[in-house]
Amino acid sequence: MKKFLILLAAALLPFQAFAQQAIFLSEGVRSPQVNEDNSVTFRIHAPKAVKVEVTGDCIESDNGGWGRAELTEGEDGVWSLTTGPLDSELYSYAFIVDGMQMLDPSNVFLMRDVRSLMNIFIVPGGKGDFYEVCKTSHGTVSKVWYDSPSLGMQRRMTVYTPAGYEDSGSRRYPVLYLLHGMGGDEDAWMTLGRATQILDNLIAQGKAEPMIVVMPNGNAGLPSAPGEGPEGLYQPMTRPMKTMEGSYEAAFMDIVKYVDSHYRTVKKKSGRAIAGLSMGGFHSFHISKQYENTFDYVGLFSAAVREMENGGSGVYADFDAKIARQFGNGLKLYYIAIGKDDFLYQENVRLREYLDQHGYPYEYVESDGGHIWRNWRVYLTDFAQRLFK
Amino acid sequence: MKKFLILLAAALLPFQAFAQQAIFLSEGVRSPQVNEDNSVTFRIHAPKAVKVEVTGDCIESDNGGWGRAELTEGEDGVWSLTTGPLDSELYSYAFIVDGMQMLDPSNVFLMRDVRSLMNIFIVPGGKGDFYEVCKTSHGTVSKVWYDSPSLGMQRRMTVYTPAGYEDSGSRRYPVLYLLHGMGGDEDAWMTLGRATQILDNLIAQGKAEPMIVVMPNGNAGLPSAPGEGPEGLYQPMTRPMKTMEGSYEAAFMDIVKYVDSHYRTVKKKSGRAIAGLSMGGFHSFHISKQYENTFDYVGLFSAAVREMENGGSGVYADFDAKIARQFGNGLKLYYIAIGKDDFLYQENVRLREYLDQHGYPYEYVESDGGHIWRNWRVYLTDFAQRLFK
Repeated sequence: MKKFLILLAAALLPFQAFAQQAIFLSEGVRSPQVNEDNSVTFRIHAPKAVKVEVTGDCIESDNGGWGRAELTEGEDGVWSLTTGPLDSELYSYAFIVDGMQMLDPSNVFLMRDVRSLMNIFIVPGGKGDFYEVCKTSHGTVSKVWYDSPSLGMQRRMTVYTPAGYEDSGSRRYPVLYLLHGMGGDEDAWMTLGRATQILDNLIAQGKAEPMIVVMPNGNAGLPSAPGEGPEGLYQPMTRPMKTMEGSYEAAFMDIVKYVDSHYRTVKKKSGRAIAGLSMGGFHSFHISKQYENTFDYVGLFSAAVREMENGGSGVYADFDAKIARQFGNGLKLYYIAIGKDDFLYQENVRLREYLDQHGYPYEYVESDGGHIWRNWRVYLTDFAQRLFK
Repeated sequence: MKKFLILLAAALLPFQAFAQQAIFLSEGVRSPQVNEDNSVTFRIHAPKAVKVEVTGDCIESDNGGWGRAELTEGEDGVWSLTTGPLDSELYSYAFIVDGMQMLDPSNVFLMRDVRSLMNIFIVPGGKGDFYEVCKTSHGTVSKVWYDSPSLGMQRRMTVYTPAGYEDSGSRRYPVLYLLHGMGGDEDAWMTLGRATQILDNLIAQGKAEPMIVVMPNGNAGLPSAPGEGPEGLYQPMTRPMKTMEGSYEAAFMDIVKYVDSHYRTVKKKSGRAIAGLSMGGFHSFHISKQYENTFDYVGLFSAAVREMENGGSGVYADFDAKIARQFGNGLKLYYIAIGKDDFLYQENVRLREYLDQHGYPYEYVESDGGHIWRNWRVYLTDFAQRLFK
């Protein structure tokens, strides 16, 4: 008897019925739809709703934050709205149905920003193209646990190795240490920051040198992002924060040592950059002057720096002397970027005044907008092209 | 003039006001809350709602699928429900507010199953403990792009290397190839399957051998999971599927060759296992007999196998002869697991009859329940302990 064990497509028909989790399936509703003219159509099936709105950074607002716009109900209970043409960008949004905010049932693509989940889409044809996964070679992204003797714990970080790293024999690569902001974690630059896509695309286009990118967790009180450590599935920002009291900066060489001993790195100053956004800019500022001959490239993106008259202890002590040594040793690029509307703008004015007074050279980029990921993606795209050349 | 640049906590107060994306923040609402007696309390702030329900696999139902239960409105518009004590498990759920299904605004932890997003929580004290990130050493999880000459594309897979891999010199490790089901992808076993946590915990407890786990993408028509490839942010299941027509199975040795040339593997049959769920069981079944001397361990979890009288082409041809060679060569474990209520139960009865008729040895595990991840996590936990010993 000739037998053949194979699954027919028909045998999987019960699969649909059985996928009891398939609860958000909005059959036939396409949302968001990016149209030919770069306008975007949002749709949601909400036959019982009285009012449906979309809120997001793709909707104009008075204060630079998320705007709101009402959708119109059509036949079959599908509400819709088409925006005007949008600039090329990665956008975030959510729906508000009769006052309740909710994700788009037709869009499975999300980002988490601290405690908030939001849907995303990309409008192509400009800088948004840097955030797409393009038809090119891709780097490897790893979630790595390393030992931090200084903090007395195993900690988690994200490591990007560029395309070709695995097959390049003994070739050594420079390293960018890329730090997140308050409430962020070792996942933030890869999700909100699209760092994988930016680096893949810049390297493939020959605009940036192939480099390793190391994204640690900047909260020294915890080992990892929420839900990724032994603390369990807790609400973000409800656990102890040790973020700007010096212990993370003091322990930073644990990370550099791990990376230099586990990856084929250029183990010298000319092969190291450090950059961060907001609190990560604060960390980059202090770490780079504490280990004053370690990084040839420093990037402060919307950095949380503040001028004060009094001193501090640990890594914060001897500010003037440390920064004098750092600039006395020389470095290739000290890069400051901020948006005109950033709430930390004045602090960065005073930082630049301080550097100017002492004749410490830096490059300055001023953009539109405020304290938002849209700017930090642009700063990373710019900064990465200036490194290791 | 002594100056010190530091950020005060106060300087970040505008951060909250500025985090315009912090839209789902439900201050003061804790949900879900796992109580001392393993009951769970759900809460949601919905002051305008008329009816609020929770649906999930934590709520009893008649058909083994997701049940539903109504929440009660309390003061301040917070609705709540406390279940009875639950078994230790990873559970999934969502809310239904006046007929609209939505995620829990107080819970950022999600899983995607094909096109569905759902919140998750873990009840500890039993098998749920295997799904927690425990205080132990952790393996590295990497998203790796490999070249598949047979399919003519770069493809993405997930690779787990066990704790200590990076620091173990020339030590070689066995490899488990772990395959997903229809509509799944290279992320599924790590998210829905909690494979990282299961392997970390089993290895740390000495119950499983340290092993590499390779999780490829079983749709040969696409390079990667939705949103992770050059197709952009498309809705899952709306792109071409090449899943059970033989090309994935025929190209499988591209993966084995990549893994054997890029990781310190035991490059022989005794160091290789292959297992999968549903469609991944179908793939494991056919791959293991096609490359009949490659895998010493085969795991079919709720496998999509179907008995037919007619033959097939390519990897599906010469069924009887291939399986005869596979068992003739000998293998250490042929493992079949399925739930009593699985819609593929009868197909697996017939598979076992076929193996019995020919005297091909296998181990059989029959569980309660149907075609669900809850079972596949248990099968992986069991199967992994039997490998490479």
